[in-house]
Amino acid sequence: MNKKRGQQSIIFASPPVITSTANIVGPMEGDGLLAEFYDRILSDTLDNNSSWEQCESAMMEWVIKTAVTKEASAIDDVDYVLAGDLLNQLMSTHFALRGVGRPFLGLYGACSTMVEGMLIGSTLIDGGFANKIVAAASSHHDAAERQYRFPTEQGVQRPMVSQWTVTGSGAAVISVMGNGPRITAATVGKIVDMGLKDPNAMGPAMAPAAADTLWHHFEDSGRQPAYYDMIYTGDLGSVGKALVIELFKTKGVDLSTNYEDCGCMIFKEDQDAHAGASGCASSAIVFTGYIYRQLMQRKLHRVLLIGTGSLHSTTSYQQKESIPCIAHAVALEM
Amino acid sequence: MNKKRGQQSIIFASPPVITSTANIVGPMEGDGLLAEFYDRILSDTLDNNSSWEQCESAMMEWVIKTAVTKEASAIDDVDYVLAGDLLNQLMSTHFALRGVGRPFLGLYGACSTMVEGMLIGSTLIDGGFANKIVAAASSHHDAAERQYRFPTEQGVQRPMVSQWTVTGSGAAVISVMGNGPRITAATVGKIVDMGLKDPNAMGPAMAPAAADTLWHHFEDSGRQPAYYDMIYTGDLGSVGKALVIELFKTKGVDLSTNYEDCGCMIFKEDQDAHAGASGCASSAIVFTGYIYRQLMQRKLHRVLLIGTGSLHSTTSYQQKESIPCIAHAVALEM
Repeated sequence: MNKKRGQQSIIFASPPVITSTANIVGPMEGDGLLAEFYDRILSDTLDNNSSWEQCESAMMEWVIKTAVTKEASAIDDVDYVLAGDLLNQLMSTHFALRGVGRPFLGLYGACSTMVEGMLIGSTLIDGGFANKIVAAASSHHDAAERQYRFPTEQGVQRPMVSQWTVTGSGAAVISVMGNGPRITAATVGKIVDMGLKDPNAMGPAMAPAAADTLWHHFEDSGRQPAYYDMIYTGDLGSVGKALVIELFKTKGVDLSTNYEDCGCMIFKEDQDAHAGASGCASSAIVFTGYIYRQLMQRKLHRVLLIGTGSLHSTTSYQQKESIPCIAHAVALEM
Repeated sequence: MNKKRGQQSIIFASPPVITSTANIVGPMEGDGLLAEFYDRILSDTLDNNSSWEQCESAMMEWVIKTAVTKEASAIDDVDYVLAGDLLNQLMSTHFALRGVGRPFLGLYGACSTMVEGMLIGSTLIDGGFANKIVAAASSHHDAAERQYRFPTEQGVQRPMVSQWTVTGSGAAVISVMGNGPRITAATVGKIVDMGLKDPNAMGPAMAPAAADTLWHHFEDSGRQPAYYDMIYTGDLGSVGKALVIELFKTKGVDLSTNYEDCGCMIFKEDQDAHAGASGCASSAIVFTGYIYRQLMQRKLHRVLLIGTGSLHSTTSYQQKESIPCIAHAVALEM
C-alpha cells in the first residue's frame, strides 16, 4: 500500500497515537507565558549538574522517562527512541540515552529535530516496525550560546532580530493504539537556502523553508489552510513569522487567522528575548505542553506542526557560507 | 503486520533492494587495498574546493547523483535522502543536499550513519512510504582531524592505537523493486559505554557496542553467525576487531572465520594508518565498493554489515566524560 502523497508527503494508513508527553524548562521559560503547561521548571540552568551540557542531557533523560511513566508504561515497552539536540555530535542526546538504555536512532535537524523524530517514529509504527516509540529533543540557552556564538559569561549585546535559545526538553510517546491525538499526515522538507548569512537572524533564513514545506503539504495532501484549527511553526520568531504570512500572501493565501509560531508563545514581552524563542526545545516544549493539552481537551481538533531548522555551523559561517534551512511537518488530529 | 523481532530487530516483509551504489575517495584511499572498487579517486584532498569541508560536501553530492545516474534513474525519482557526516551540525551533508534538492532527513550516528540511513530508509520502503531512497555518508580526514583533534598542519604524532579517518563518501540507492542484494533484516543499537575515555582509541570503545548489537541480532533473528558468508563491522580497526572476536569467544562463539572489519580493509600496512581506517566513509566506501560488488557477482550471498559509531564530542572529552558508542546492523542477501 503506497502511503506517499505527491512529492514529499505521507498519509498514514493507521495513524499513530501520541499517548503521552512530558517537558521540562529552565527558569526564564518558567517565568514566561506558558508556565502552567510545563511538567517541571528548573530553578537555575545547572540544576546541580557540573556543566550546562550535562544539565541539558539530564533534562532529556528526565522527559523521556517521565513521558513513559505518565502513561503507565515501562521504559522497556519503548521499541525505539528517536532524538537529537543542537550540540556538536548530539552530546546531550547521547548521554541522555546512555541512561535510557533503549534502541536509539540519532537525528540532526537542528530545531526541526522534534518533528523529524515524530515523523520517522510514526512511519516506524504505521509500517509495522514498532508498537511504541519516543521522540525527544532538547536545547540549552547557555550551552548553545557558547557553542554557536560567544562565551556565555561575556554577555554580548544581541541584535533585535536575534532569538533566545530555549532551555528545555520535550518528549512524546507515540503508540500504535491508545488515547490521544493521531498523526494523520506528514511532509518531509527539502533544503531551502535563500542566501542569507547572518546567524543572528535565523527566523528570516528559515521562513522560506517553512513556507516551502507548508505549501507542499497543502499541495500533496489536498488540504487547505482552513482544514487546520491552528498551524504552528517551530521557532521562526516574530520576524520569520511575519515573513511566512507575507510569502503566502503573494500566493493569494491568507494565513494570518490560524497561524502562530511557537517561538512567539514562550517569553513575555519584557523578558528581552527580542524576536522570540528558538532552539530544538521551542517547538518541543510548546507542542508537548500547550498544544498537546489543547488537543486532549478538544479545544483544538486539527493542528499542523512544522519544525523549522537552521542548519548552519560555526565553521560554515566562518567560511562565509549562507544558511541552509529545512522544515518538516506533522498533522495532528483529535 | 508486526515486523519487529525480539528486543531490537526487524525482519522486512518485502525486503528492499539495493539497486545501485557509488563512492569516491581521497588519494590515500586510492593508493590502498581496494582501489579497483572505487568509482572516483581524487588526486588531492581539496579537489579544487576552497576548504576540506567543501570538498567533503562536493564528494557527497557527487556520490548521491552518481548512484542515481548509474541505475538510470532521475534524481526526482528519489523520494527521500537520508544522510549524515561527522562535522558539527552535519555541515558536509547539508550543503551537499542543497545541491541535490530532494526531501531530506538528517541523521547523526557518527560512523554508524551509513547503516542507520540504510536501516531507516528500508523501513520507509517496506512500510509503503517510499519507492526509492538514497542513504549516504561521508568523512574527510583533514576536516575531521582539525575539528576533533589538532590543527591538521601541526602533524601531531598519533598513538599506534589510533585510526585514520577516511576521506571519501558512499551512497546507496534502495528501491522497492529491482536487481541487487536485498535488505532482509536490521538491528537497531543501544548506547553502550564501558567507561573508556581516550578519543584516540575509538576501536576499543566501540567494540562492546558492536558485540552487543551483533549478539542481539543473532538472538532476535534466530540466525547463527554461520548464516552469513561474512560479517563486517564499520571501523573498529585491528584493536577493536580483536576485541569483538575475544568478546564472542567468552560467550563460546567463534567469529574468527567469517568476520572482518572495514577499517582493516582500506589501507596497506605501509600507509601508516596505524590501527586501521575510521570515519563515516569507512563502512560507506567498503560497502558501496567491495562488498556490493561481491554480492552482485554472487561471490558473497549473505552479509551482515554493522555500522559502528563513537558518539563523543570535543566538549564531552574536555568535560572528562567517557565515550558512548552505538552500532546498527543490516542483513544483505543476494
